[in-house]
Amino acid sequence: MVRMTLEAATELSEAVLRRQGFSQEQTRALTHTVIAGQRDECHSHGLYRLLNCVSTLAAGKVNVHARPEVHDQAPGIVRVDAKGGFSQLAFEAGLPELTRKARQQGIAALAINHCVHFSALWVEIEAITQCGLVALACNPSHAWVAPAGGTKPLFGTNPIAFGWPRPDGQPPFIFDFATSAIARGDIELHRREGKPVPHGWGIDRHGQPTQDAAAVLEGAMLTFGGHKGSALAAMIELIAGPLIGDLTSAESLAHDEGKGASPYHGELILALDPRRFLGDSATEHLQRAEALFTAMTAQGARLPSQRRYEARERSLTQGVEIPDSLYLELQQLA
Amino acid sequence: MVRMTLEAATELSEAVLRRQGFSQEQTRALTHTVIAGQRDECHSHGLYRLLNCVSTLAAGKVNVHARPEVHDQAPGIVRVDAKGGFSQLAFEAGLPELTRKARQQGIAALAINHCVHFSALWVEIEAITQCGLVALACNPSHAWVAPAGGTKPLFGTNPIAFGWPRPDGQPPFIFDFATSAIARGDIELHRREGKPVPHGWGIDRHGQPTQDAAAVLEGAMLTFGGHKGSALAAMIELIAGPLIGDLTSAESLAHDEGKGASPYHGELILALDPRRFLGDSATEHLQRAEALFTAMTAQGARLPSQRRYEARERSLTQGVEIPDSLYLELQQLA
Repeated sequence: MVRMTLEAATELSEAVLRRQGFSQEQTRALTHTVIAGQRDECHSHGLYRLLNCVSTLAAGKVNVHARPEVHDQAPGIVRVDAKGGFSQLAFEAGLPELTRKARQQGIAALAINHCVHFSALWVEIEAITQCGLVALACNPSHAWVAPAGGTKPLFGTNPIAFGWPRPDGQPPFIFDFATSAIARGDIELHRREGKPVPHGWGIDRHGQPTQDAAAVLEGAMLTFGGHKGSALAAMIELIAGPLIGDLTSAESLAHDEGKGASPYHGELILALDPRRFLGDSATEHLQRAEALFTAMTAQGARLPSQRRYEARERSLTQGVEIPDSLYLELQQLA
Repeated sequence: MVRMTLEAATELSEAVLRRQGFSQEQTRALTHTVIAGQRDECHSHGLYRLLNCVSTLAAGKVNVHARPEVHDQAPGIVRVDAKGGFSQLAFEAGLPELTRKARQQGIAALAINHCVHFSALWVEIEAITQCGLVALACNPSHAWVAPAGGTKPLFGTNPIAFGWPRPDGQPPFIFDFATSAIARGDIELHRREGKPVPHGWGIDRHGQPTQDAAAVLEGAMLTFGGHKGSALAAMIELIAGPLIGDLTSAESLAHDEGKGASPYHGELILALDPRRFLGDSATEHLQRAEALFTAMTAQGARLPSQRRYEARERSLTQGVEIPDSLYLELQQLA
């Protein structure tokens, strides 16, 4: 393993992206997200993801010079056209208007269109909670997941993420999970290692349950939580697809033309302002949320992002570690 | 079984509620919801629920004369104080302002406070989709469900429901499910019948997994989908509790003082207007949602409310059926 400071990791990421031709603004925004993932030890969303950025570019599926355009769609809706770039800069471009609208209206939506997407949603959720707002976000991906009762891939791994700001400098309550039973990368890992996958992860191309990782990758993944998870996955297709005038996971996969690039679609983000919901009694009521968190941890339940925040503490003092092979690969790309 | 027309079922419900002292408006709104449940063969939310209304009243936990008050909280938020009545009339009172705000702002929230709650959310979701809007709703209940990794009841069964309007007179795409693994009533049914419950429904009061229904009812129910379902249940506590200045499931259960009445809390409902998100291209993009539904049903996956709509068709022509014992009980209350 190679250990490096967060500053060195940032420089490495920026060097790779600049060398690939990404604009200065795209490079900065992408690096912010990649370093946040590495810092919190979400390794699959850390520096490793730069390889995806590079391969997506090689496939001709991302615009390195994209300059997002912000549209004031309605009093409660801001729309950002990412212009075929990665999602990060589009999110940054839309955030000030989203927070302004949420504070004014009480609730507002940010619809990002035409973006290439590879990142965890918690980075964006955290940015919204830092403005004192409650946030909910979701997006489709590529059609890899069968609906409950079905046999063929139709939904994406369709993540949903939620954030709740906390007082006194405490990190926000955030969850961010795929509505698939497991990440696709985990199934690929099982295939590479020749290990059977657990029951419930997927079905083969005939729609039969299987523990053969390769058969699942050729067949379809399943959602978490049976028909309930499947219903949520369908909701995400709808509200982060047709509702915002953007692609479903099936349409994103068709757009890919077998290139294996990152998905191309939209993203829906909602922001709610507790101060508009609660007025002068906001502080009092938000204290009751703290009582809920205390009741969770007191009985041994973990808050969803606890591990990430612990990793963050470590990384801020000790830096981050990546495998030698990844380090060499990134150096060659830089 | 006793078979009756929907008109007769409506008269029976109204007679029971009037006799118990519910105001004319409360009686009408409650009956609308109870009959919708019976019509769609959601038996536990049909005429059977009148027994809950009566026992909740006998416990002194509902206001039969409550007149909801509508407050214009913010440009994107309408708040309705249900004044301790059942939720239905409060929802009806807030609906016109919710739809007006959603059409004006693009997205709006309805927060119902201080309501006694027994009904499925799909009835309200369907009313919003009939206005051409997308809807999302959730509420806490009584603290019966342990968080993932925990051992004690903290969350409610916390339902979440979603609706999507469909063109050409097709019934909306609607799902409505508890974030608990199963409804509490199903566990009670297993106890009465002396049958073991499946793995994953609950734990005993020492936090150990058990298949003993009585032990689960004394211990805690579990969420669906492991830590993901648990995260959703926590989100519902937060956004339909403290965010709207109302009780969590633990607070609702404390308020009950062991009376076994219906939960007392708030409810959060969001409405989104596809026409504000999409402008002139709404029809085109909503057609892509239809393609998603077709792709689901073509591979044998059921749309979430399909069974309900089939039951509705039957009930509209053939009437509804309830057990003799329930019919007699209701007649005595009427």
